[in-house]
Amino acid sequence: MYTLHDWTIVDDGKDGQAALENGNRLLVGNGYMAKRGTVEEADASSMPTIVLSGVFDKRGDMWREPVNAPDPLFAVLSMDGVPLTLASDKLSAHEQSLDFRYGVYSRKTTWDIKGAALTVSTERFASMDDVHLLCMKYTVSAVDGRLSPNVEIRINADVCDLNGPHLGNFRFEVKGRTRTLICETLEKKIPVAVASEVVESGSSSRLIEGSSYPLDLERANSVELFVFGAVWTGLDAEDPLGSAEKSVSRAKTAGWDCLLAAHKAKWDEIWRVGDVAIKGDDYAQKALHYNLYHLHIAAPRYKRRCGSLSVPARGLSGQTYKGAIFWDTEMFIAPYFLATEPTLAAQFIRYRIETLDGARRKAAEYGFRGAFFAWESQETGDDACTDFNVTDVFTGRPVRTYFRDKQIHISADVAFAVKRYVDATDDLAILKEGGLELILEVARFYLSYIYYSPERKRYEALDVVGPDEYHERVNNNAFTNRMILMVFETALSIVSFFKKRDAGFIEELTAKLDFSQDFSLMQDVIPRFYIPQPNEQGVIEQFDGYFRLEDCSLDAVRSRLKDPKEYWGGGNGVASPTCIIKQADVVTMLALFGNEYPVSVKEANFTFYEPRTEHGSSLSACMYALLACEIGRSDWAYPFFVKNAEIDITGKGKHFAGLVYIGGTHPAASGGAWLTVVHGFCGFSLKNNEIRVTPRLPSHWEEVTFRVALPDGLHEVTVTRDGWSEEII
Amino acid sequence: MYTLHDWTIVDDGKDGQAALENGNRLLVGNGYMAKRGTVEEADASSMPTIVLSGVFDKRGDMWREPVNAPDPLFAVLSMDGVPLTLASDKLSAHEQSLDFRYGVYSRKTTWDIKGAALTVSTERFASMDDVHLLCMKYTVSAVDGRLSPNVEIRINADVCDLNGPHLGNFRFEVKGRTRTLICETLEKKIPVAVASEVVESGSSSRLIEGSSYPLDLERANSVELFVFGAVWTGLDAEDPLGSAEKSVSRAKTAGWDCLLAAHKAKWDEIWRVGDVAIKGDDYAQKALHYNLYHLHIAAPRYKRRCGSLSVPARGLSGQTYKGAIFWDTEMFIAPYFLATEPTLAAQFIRYRIETLDGARRKAAEYGFRGAFFAWESQETGDDACTDFNVTDVFTGRPVRTYFRDKQIHISADVAFAVKRYVDATDDLAILKEGGLELILEVARFYLSYIYYSPERKRYEALDVVGPDEYHERVNNNAFTNRMILMVFETALSIVSFFKKRDAGFIEELTAKLDFSQDFSLMQDVIPRFYIPQPNEQGVIEQFDGYFRLEDCSLDAVRSRLKDPKEYWGGGNGVASPTCIIKQADVVTMLALFGNEYPVSVKEANFTFYEPRTEHGSSLSACMYALLACEIGRSDWAYPFFVKNAEIDITGKGKHFAGLVYIGGTHPAASGGAWLTVVHGFCGFSLKNNEIRVTPRLPSHWEEVTFRVALPDGLHEVTVTRDGWSEEII
Repeated sequence: MYTLHDWTIVDDGKDGQAALENGNRLLVGNGYMAKRGTVEEADASSMPTIVLSGVFDKRGDMWREPVNAPDPLFAVLSMDGVPLTLASDKLSAHEQSLDFRYGVYSRKTTWDIKGAALTVSTERFASMDDVHLLCMKYTVSAVDGRLSPNVEIRINADVCDLNGPHLGNFRFEVKGRTRTLICETLEKKIPVAVASEVVESGSSSRLIEGSSYPLDLERANSVELFVFGAVWTGLDAEDPLGSAEKSVSRAKTAGWDCLLAAHKAKWDEIWRVGDVAIKGDDYAQKALHYNLYHLHIAAPRYKRRCGSLSVPARGLSGQTYKGAIFWDTEMFIAPYFLATEPTLAAQFIRYRIETLDGARRKAAEYGFRGAFFAWESQETGDDACTDFNVTDVFTGRPVRTYFRDKQIHISADVAFAVKRYVDATDDLAILKEGGLELILEVARFYLSYIYYSPERKRYEALDVVGPDEYHERVNNNAFTNRMILMVFETALSIVSFFKKRDAGFIEELTAKLDFSQDFSLMQDVIPRFYIPQPNEQGVIEQFDGYFRLEDCSLDAVRSRLKDPKEYWGGGNGVASPTCIIKQADVVTMLALFGNEYPVSVKEANFTFYEPRTEHGSSLSACMYALLACEIGRSDWAYPFFVKNAEIDITGKGKHFAGLVYIGGTHPAASGGAWLTVVHGFCGFSLKNNEIRVTPRLPSHWEEVTFRVALPDGLHEVTVTRDGWSEEII
Repeated sequence: MYTLHDWTIVDDGKDGQAALENGNRLLVGNGYMAKRGTVEEADASSMPTIVLSGVFDKRGDMWREPVNAPDPLFAVLSMDGVPLTLASDKLSAHEQSLDFRYGVYSRKTTWDIKGAALTVSTERFASMDDVHLLCMKYTVSAVDGRLSPNVEIRINADVCDLNGPHLGNFRFEVKGRTRTLICETLEKKIPVAVASEVVESGSSSRLIEGSSYPLDLERANSVELFVFGAVWTGLDAEDPLGSAEKSVSRAKTAGWDCLLAAHKAKWDEIWRVGDVAIKGDDYAQKALHYNLYHLHIAAPRYKRRCGSLSVPARGLSGQTYKGAIFWDTEMFIAPYFLATEPTLAAQFIRYRIETLDGARRKAAEYGFRGAFFAWESQETGDDACTDFNVTDVFTGRPVRTYFRDKQIHISADVAFAVKRYVDATDDLAILKEGGLELILEVARFYLSYIYYSPERKRYEALDVVGPDEYHERVNNNAFTNRMILMVFETALSIVSFFKKRDAGFIEELTAKLDFSQDFSLMQDVIPRFYIPQPNEQGVIEQFDGYFRLEDCSLDAVRSRLKDPKEYWGGGNGVASPTCIIKQADVVTMLALFGNEYPVSVKEANFTFYEPRTEHGSSLSACMYALLACEIGRSDWAYPFFVKNAEIDITGKGKHFAGLVYIGGTHPAASGGAWLTVVHGFCGFSLKNNEIRVTPRLPSHWEEVTFRVALPDGLHEVTVTRDGWSEEII
């Protein structure tokens, strides 16, 4: 069971689901890679992996997924040739913890050996200072016994994968004290190099043949080993093996204490910019810190040789969701970085600009023009999403889902992030670096997608899936339609802006994209594009015909399940024929376009849709919370904030969709927790580098302090229940 | 096991599936009602029902379905108080048969009683001369024994229903020798009256108290009883009970022999007009006769007080398919009657004209204008089809199907039947009696349904289900689009015709329907309405994206089934993500619009689609057969003819869709068998009362003779392999 302290989370669970959850809960990482919070000797059942950001591989006809690195920190203790594991009947105590201020994982495990207590204590971190570096201190101590255990420390190339193996052509070498491994991915032959070295405290020269280290605890109570591991790939350097060896060599020279100090210094800088202080709610404070930690270990701060990176939907916690970038990044994660580290928010946009060709290919694949971004985007922008994302629990057969081909709002979500970035920062450069081209190509995609109804004399967007994925292939999803109109309006407004300031740029771009006719069509479409309006009760119908569906309770729908792992949506799902929705949909639209609707409409939709929402996605709670704040009901918002902030603490998010494992961390929920506190409770927004605040703190909160990085410096904003102030620090 | 003779079919099956199949196989009827081919004493397991045409009832939230009448011919023999049934261990012989020239059912069953053989032989018919009359001869005989059995003959009001009971308020009475029952349907309180009388041969005065008749076989070897039953409803007469009593009284006066003679005389007249003679293929001849018989017992020749009738998709064989009229009637059944008894074909059209308001209500329900005909049409034209037509075998939950709301071709099918009738007969009166109004309202429905794509600069029909129901919610189904265009073209062409001859009629109708603007739109749409065209291989894509589906074999799809009763289509069906289709779709379009395509295209589509077709509907084989004939391949067509003609002989049609029982007779297949012989093999068509023939008989056929009823008399057409002739007879 986990315990949350000020900057630590501790858990004593050791097997089965607990081990899987701790892998996520106690994750350490640095945006380049992350090592799951599993013990050093863990076997495949707890998925003891090191996920690399932005390195993908596809095996056979299975899903393309991120590549896990061989583990330079693998270590297993044994006595008399018998490995000591958490499953051993000699186990007497076990605890793991994570210092989420500094991203340091610790474990302490004791076995009872012939009446003597033998303990392994370890600490490890993925260096924020040198992102290729994994460092571990491995301490073995004995009380009341003269024991001679043995520890095996090696690079573990027996990598555990969901759809692997992904690596082959392994070459191990021992060069002096350094062990190295070079191998390559199977699909694209990307070299992956790992080096490691083990140093014994106080005895810097001992190297034992093989990887087995006898520990003489008869001489000392305690032996302390340091393991310095480095991971490089061919995407980072021409000679990844040489780079890995150099990293290890430098690490060894610097030593544990220096490395840890440099690592912590980077974290101190991260927190200096990105911390949020909540007075009056210790739990909220701790939980928010924990969530911000998870955002930072997934944020790709380092510059790769080739290609910008973004934040995958499950961070770097594993291979679920194919390590892909979803709309989660643009909608839920980017706002935090936009406020605190705008260069990261810009990198997320650059990642999309660089993958625009993939989006063009996807549009063409479906017979459209322009850019149809991938629902699940990997390094090329081609869609990693398949047509069959769920497995039917009753037949074991794949179920046709429409995430890939019908969830067309993804392109607008990407364009929205560009618009939001530019609106906030006034950074026009990104528009000229491909941002406007992206927006125009997205607009063109929608122009080629929409239809005109001569009957209703309006343009419509048909056959889509909105955020509520349980209802597939609907017409005129309110959220999707509003987002499409936003794209058209944004495109015209930016073009018109540049025409005055830099007409040549627009002329050149229009010619390059052959866009003239599309401008005319867009002007025709805008005033006649259908946006579903509130009915007499103020409620906006989620899509055409939604109000005709069976209106029953969430409990009624749940009671129809025959299997707890059943998928609720799609052709045969229990929710599909009913008004029960997966997640905020109209509510998301109102949260994003709040200035267009009166509070009464916001309230009507909140109260209508909330009881009909399963919140089966981590993207749901945040939008409800934001809308509640807009209505002035922080008390409604607070439980959603807690739900969002707790998801990776409790580990109780959904672990299965159908029979497919979908566990991992939830950076969108973490971003959502920050959004709720800063945009929701503090009423913060940023427009042309100007901070606006409308305080609406929960009644038991005294004060919130957060920082915003603006061109003139770092602004500290302090919000109380009835006022706010800012200063440059 | 059944045996098919020249004009008889004999079967010895008695329980389970066999009894259910014989109920259909040995059905007698007269278009007003039909009694299933079950033994007189049958219990509910073999569905021993008398289905009434055009009388419907809905109980609770179950499907609305046709009403079964109480059975005046119920009879059970017993010895020493023990009923003798087919399940008795004393049963020694049993056989049932149907004379399908005259619609006479017979059974002969022998029980071994104390060493003596006790036999019941019965004959029964539903009179073609007086459609309210059911007549039975019930003979009991004994060999080698002096037995005194007892027979109970009564009106059985313990009616077996799928979704019943539908009758209540029962009042039984005995008036002299006549037993009567009046009751009423539960929903609409329609009175249903039954009367019956039992007469003993040679002893016209014996009436026993109660309904139990002791039979003195010690005196005679054989006792012969006659039962005359009559059924009337409040839809037929003001005083149905009085009418039923009068029917019985008249029947008793006439006696069995006279009644049978009058009944046979009507059948002789039916065959005089409607028979088809095949020389050189005895089996085809017998099978075709059997199919024509089934068409005739379902054809509503009598005139009801209120409302025209049509032929339900399962004839009068039971309550499956809700006793509703489907497109089966217009597409597959009407052509036979159009050629032989055009007043019946006109009645089918009148039925649609009279239910036009129901179609208008359905269109309005979905937000459209005009007439959206019911997928399953009962007496009002409101749709009896629900949103959930299939039960999932794995969860027992209803599955959302889209027959009702997306199979929009139904309206065009109805309009097509009007056009075909008028083209063949030159009977313009029906257009003025509502036929043109129907066509315009159907055109208007499609005008309000379609969309314009600014991208592709064309009108399209989106989100439909074509004849192949396994693929739901598709765009631009070739068949549907061509049918819609046919509606627009037909509407304009008829209007333009009348403008020259009867401009006032058009002005009046245009004003009444407020149709002027729709005429303009229709003119704009016609040249820009999208009709999928053959690709380089000559194959027409069934719908947008069909060619992207998994192209695997029928066997591969079948092998994925986990349960033999699984539904192949819909969200989770095995066929849905593949190219495997339920039934002829593009092929149906080519069969109907053959003059627009060269033989090469017909052949390309036949050979492409045939191996990909499950033929899971009785509507499939006929269209393949017709197209094969058009290609000049009667040898390809012949197996489809046999498949179609055999479906009710073998009884091996589909009995379940999901968990829903769908067994019964297949009048569309029977109509399809005639279509294949006369339209297919003989190449017959009728245009402005002029007969055209293009012989393409199967190589082993010598000659086909059929008749066509034209205004100048009955034409007999004789077709040989290389010529044809006609004469008025």
